Amino acid sequence: MIDAEDMERPERLVVAVGGNATHPEDIRGTTAEQEQIAARTARALLPLVQAAREIVVTHGNGPVVGKIMLRQYYARAEVPPMRLDVCVAHSQGGIGHLLMQGLEDELMRAADPRRVACVITRVAVSAQDEAFQHPRKPIGPFFSQEKAAELQASLGWNMVEDSGRGWRYVVPSPKPREILDLELIAALAAQGIVVIAAGGGGIPMVLRADGSYAGVPAVIDKDMTSALLANRLGIDTLLILTAVPKVLVDFRTPRERALDRVSASELEGYLQDGQFADGSMGPKVEAALKFLAGGGRRAIIAALDQALAAIEGRSGTHVVPD
Amino acid sequence: MIDAEDMERPERLVVAVGGNATHPEDIRGTTAEQEQIAARTARALLPLVQAAREIVVTHGNGPVVGKIMLRQYYARAEVPPMRLDVCVAHSQGGIGHLLMQGLEDELMRAADPRRVACVITRVAVSAQDEAFQHPRKPIGPFFSQEKAAELQASLGWNMVEDSGRGWRYVVPSPKPREILDLELIAALAAQGIVVIAAGGGGIPMVLRADGSYAGVPAVIDKDMTSALLANRLGIDTLLILTAVPKVLVDFRTPRERALDRVSASELEGYLQDGQFADGSMGPKVEAALKFLAGGGRRAIIAALDQALAAIEGRSGTHVVPD
Repeated sequence: MIDAEDMERPERLVVAVGGNATHPEDIRGTTAEQEQIAARTARALLPLVQAAREIVVTHGNGPVVGKIMLRQYYARAEVPPMRLDVCVAHSQGGIGHLLMQGLEDELMRAADPRRVACVITRVAVSAQDEAFQHPRKPIGPFFSQEKAAELQASLGWNMVEDSGRGWRYVVPSPKPREILDLELIAALAAQGIVVIAAGGGGIPMVLRADGSYAGVPAVIDKDMTSALLANRLGIDTLLILTAVPKVLVDFRTPRERALDRVSASELEGYLQDGQFADGSMGPKVEAALKFLAGGGRRAIIAALDQALAAIEGRSGTHVVPD
Repeated sequence: MIDAEDMERPERLVVAVGGNATHPEDIRGTTAEQEQIAARTARALLPLVQAAREIVVTHGNGPVVGKIMLRQYYARAEVPPMRLDVCVAHSQGGIGHLLMQGLEDELMRAADPRRVACVITRVAVSAQDEAFQHPRKPIGPFFSQEKAAELQASLGWNMVEDSGRGWRYVVPSPKPREILDLELIAALAAQGIVVIAAGGGGIPMVLRADGSYAGVPAVIDKDMTSALLANRLGIDTLLILTAVPKVLVDFRTPRERALDRVSASELEGYLQDGQFADGSMGPKVEAALKFLAGGGRRAIIAALDQALAAIEGRSGTHVVPD
């Protein structure tokens, strides 16, 4: 059960939605399909927008970046591929556009005068991050071994075999260190503008010796960036929305159970036990713990269609400090 | 000669740079090349940023959208193409990222604490605009007649023969009616933030019957959008930067001359005479006239590398009210 404290709706909120919120993996992915899905996501987010005085929405970009990479692959003989940070920037524009329009349309229908902004967001990572030595994050489609060899040779893509299903391009996924466009996001959110920011985890940048920044071919985990963003904004509540209603432990065993409320140390224990080793819940759990370690008061992992219930304490897994 | 009034630097400024400012047509177009060019553009813009209290930078996107279309063409059997408004949104993200970083790096080197923001910008057009019946704006590469027929059939691209050089995809280029993200741009600029907005002329949107907006497959002229943006922001000066230092009349005749200062009605006369029928100056002249008709006080068409001289009255063609 969730205690009474959980029933207070947060006034300031960072909400992370998955790449699936505008482009599920299982659709062909025409613009019309993506628009319908963005509209559905916007409908789910509307009650949060109306409940919160300040709200920043972040989003994943996996399927969209996967398609950009696939297009680059097919056009490789004619068109030089863009460095991955530029691909992320493209996805921020495209997804931001669809999500912004979906949210503004919902606000208009609700006669709510609030406006939505999408800001291109860069995130600093460390050039010394071990991820650059060990790229592990797969993006884009599966290829045959033969094609993989060709891509490694022609485009310099780092290809690895992925659990018997084929070869994929893997890229570094360094930890986010600073949100470079933080002040801008803070200023807009403080004005009551609904801010879409840090799409795809942000555009990865490293500091050069002269103090300038350079884009790097990497992707940053969007939940980790969302946790950092909420910490830096001094926002107490992080809501990570996904396809499942709660975090499960002892998955597919007779002891399987859903977590309603869990302390950081208890959840850390489950993580260390390897409870989330397979599947996509691990990074969300890590982001929730990172957020609490950085001063956050409550991380909620919940289903997109139960977003309002989640911030009202009636759904989701609530992770709280010890 | 330019009169003394021209020597007053404007405090509030909209500056439009070409698609060439981050991606000239004549480079292969790797990210490293585009970064170098964006850095050069940023160096040219820095004195303007330092001179103006409020500055909004707009940019073209032709070569970048052309490449997106070309990638979509090569990947057409596997990946559904994005509607053109989504392609424009992608280009806003990608170009904005490079230009933003270029400008922030220049500001850092100049020890200037101002920040740069890139906002995804939607622009309303009329569904009744005659451009939708008569698509005329070519985008992307040239194709053979055979390929053109295939593209028309498979992707629905409207292909036309372009002056003996091959077939191109032509799209509607409707007039901009409203800047949907105007308040956001105004609020950021008023705070002294350098705002990159309305990239590629803005994401084209039409109003639906229920009051919501829908993206449409079109592109808007970036100089026309810049003129409208400056008018709506109540900014008196519009600077259109291009590859040539001044507007020429009687081009390639013994009477050829460059215009230093020209009244709106005189320039309108040249336009009606067909002085700018060929080449890319026509739309810039039209945008300058539109800006003055909408209440602007001075439109300057000048070379990018003479940007500061232009706002100080020492370069460019200055178009002023009658």
